[in-house]
Amino acid sequence: MNLFRPNIQKMTGYTPGKQPKGGGFVKLNTNENPYPPSPKVIAAIKHAACETLRLYPDPLATAAREKAAAVLGVKPAQVLMGNGSDDLLTMIIRAFVGPGDKVAFPYPTYSLYDVLVKIQDGISCPVDFPEDYSLPNNIVVKGAKVTFIANPNAPSGTMIHASELSDLAERVSGALVIDEAYVDFADFNCLHLVNRHPNVILLRTLSKSYSLAGIRSGFAVSTEEIIAGLMKVKDSYNVDRLGMVATLAALDDVKRMRRNAEKIKASRSCLTEALVNLGFAVYPSESNFVLAKCPRWLDAEATYEDLERRRILVRYFKQRMVDDCLRITVGTPREINALLKALAEITGPFAPKPSRK
Amino acid sequence: MNLFRPNIQKMTGYTPGKQPKGGGFVKLNTNENPYPPSPKVIAAIKHAACETLRLYPDPLATAAREKAAAVLGVKPAQVLMGNGSDDLLTMIIRAFVGPGDKVAFPYPTYSLYDVLVKIQDGISCPVDFPEDYSLPNNIVVKGAKVTFIANPNAPSGTMIHASELSDLAERVSGALVIDEAYVDFADFNCLHLVNRHPNVILLRTLSKSYSLAGIRSGFAVSTEEIIAGLMKVKDSYNVDRLGMVATLAALDDVKRMRRNAEKIKASRSCLTEALVNLGFAVYPSESNFVLAKCPRWLDAEATYEDLERRRILVRYFKQRMVDDCLRITVGTPREINALLKALAEITGPFAPKPSRK
Repeated sequence: MNLFRPNIQKMTGYTPGKQPKGGGFVKLNTNENPYPPSPKVIAAIKHAACETLRLYPDPLATAAREKAAAVLGVKPAQVLMGNGSDDLLTMIIRAFVGPGDKVAFPYPTYSLYDVLVKIQDGISCPVDFPEDYSLPNNIVVKGAKVTFIANPNAPSGTMIHASELSDLAERVSGALVIDEAYVDFADFNCLHLVNRHPNVILLRTLSKSYSLAGIRSGFAVSTEEIIAGLMKVKDSYNVDRLGMVATLAALDDVKRMRRNAEKIKASRSCLTEALVNLGFAVYPSESNFVLAKCPRWLDAEATYEDLERRRILVRYFKQRMVDDCLRITVGTPREINALLKALAEITGPFAPKPSRK
Repeated sequence: MNLFRPNIQKMTGYTPGKQPKGGGFVKLNTNENPYPPSPKVIAAIKHAACETLRLYPDPLATAAREKAAAVLGVKPAQVLMGNGSDDLLTMIIRAFVGPGDKVAFPYPTYSLYDVLVKIQDGISCPVDFPEDYSLPNNIVVKGAKVTFIANPNAPSGTMIHASELSDLAERVSGALVIDEAYVDFADFNCLHLVNRHPNVILLRTLSKSYSLAGIRSGFAVSTEEIIAGLMKVKDSYNVDRLGMVATLAALDDVKRMRRNAEKIKASRSCLTEALVNLGFAVYPSESNFVLAKCPRWLDAEATYEDLERRRILVRYFKQRMVDDCLRITVGTPREINALLKALAEITGPFAPKPSRK
């Protein structure tokens, strides 16, 4: 007796990156920020760890939404808070997509989109990115209820310009979700599109740039109408009391986030240059990771495994178009050096001899 | 242009009980525990509020599941952790119920069941409880994918015996979800049914008995097969790092939970007796609240509003079968006295004169 829906029986769940139990790993596999969160966040959590934990959190997350709205320059009614932005992606799928409904997204991108569509028994319509990761020409899928664009994209780290997405918002039939999980590491963002197009939903998270992956806090920004509709689908108490105060404190220290993001952007340049010198082709990244294509004489999967044996974790995707690549989170300079040293050792014996002119 | 699915457009969301912003309320409306959580929980959260918040939580929640399994006497693979048990209810609906599928539950019960079915575009099949809140004769709905039994039931506080639910598990066609959110305030539970029936899913929460509504932590207990299937639908990082350590610490102090539950059970007796003396009919409660039916000469809604003006919050449901009732959380003796004093003042002028014999 299998009680599950047929679509659930058929599917496999999302595979998150490894979270090693022991210490001693150089962890460059899940795009966590290498710098600690703001001391204000730590203090706020310690202060909130008290008797009032016996009480439910504010189901409307009013204070956090007001704070986020002030930081982003929108109205609080345009903001919805999620238990991480994955929670918001789930709400979006449940609110807009029924069984048999189409959902479009470029390929390769954040693989959770496809998993969420399958859970909902919808139809995923992945559209291949061109080799340069520019917007695919045929990304407009007729009748698609939702189109997802991760911008910057994962795992490529590349970005599509706001004017192209503004144009896309006019051309898609349903909602256009611009997932800006990594946008604080980029040179621009698409926030202004929210007040220009009635079908744009923008997602932000505190996991990456605010160093709070362990807390689960994200925001959707859209029209008041769309936020009100998504609210119906939201779990009443999706964000707990500690997540709420952590969010408020984090948004009180935007300066620190910016400082860390700048450090990471500087490290990204160094990492990119060094990888290129080792023979990798690196896609231009606007995020806190780089996608590095292995030189032809180097097997990506074997390199990933070799690095893991050396207790350095990066991400390898055994799938079309990226199975010759490694996705590497931009860590601290020390972590990057450890990675580069290991890569130099691994590639050394295989590297072709420089041709003599 | 309305982008939402028709079922989402039609529905209204779940209405949680009021969470007043200001202080000074006697809050007996959302079944929170009046006693603080274990000091071990507070200490564990303070300890975990550190640099590692930049890292994702363990997506499998291994430590918390092992701990819960040990406390409950089942295997870790039989346990799934949720961001509160509401999160687990959502997973269950998404995993078992497609559009047009039937879901059965008694009426009145926890109103979130109906909301979740509507989000999924399923068909809710509520079956009226008899006046004594015993199991409805016609609760077995042909083809129902899921049958929900809150046991103890909310808002009645009443309970159905395990042997009847064991029998019901054999008779329903789909999953039988026994929602034991309040079971630590009862004299028995249905945990043993999990290893006896392949279709039983048991839900527990730390919100009520462990005084952790602000944290969001709950468990589903079932067969390994059902837990593995639900896992596919789970958000990878549904429980954050602080929720995880809070859960571990809470389950390390079951003794305190039991002591608080005993205090609440004693207060429940006093509250029940006093309400009966004021002319209310009180259903036999096995939970941390009582459902009090107003005497015929007293309007429940007006009383609820009068109490709120006196800054005492109880819960009133303007719906069939319970619109002459107040649901009152069992608070501290001091809170109960404040409520009883107010009720005596409110009912005093209306109470019928004792008839002279």
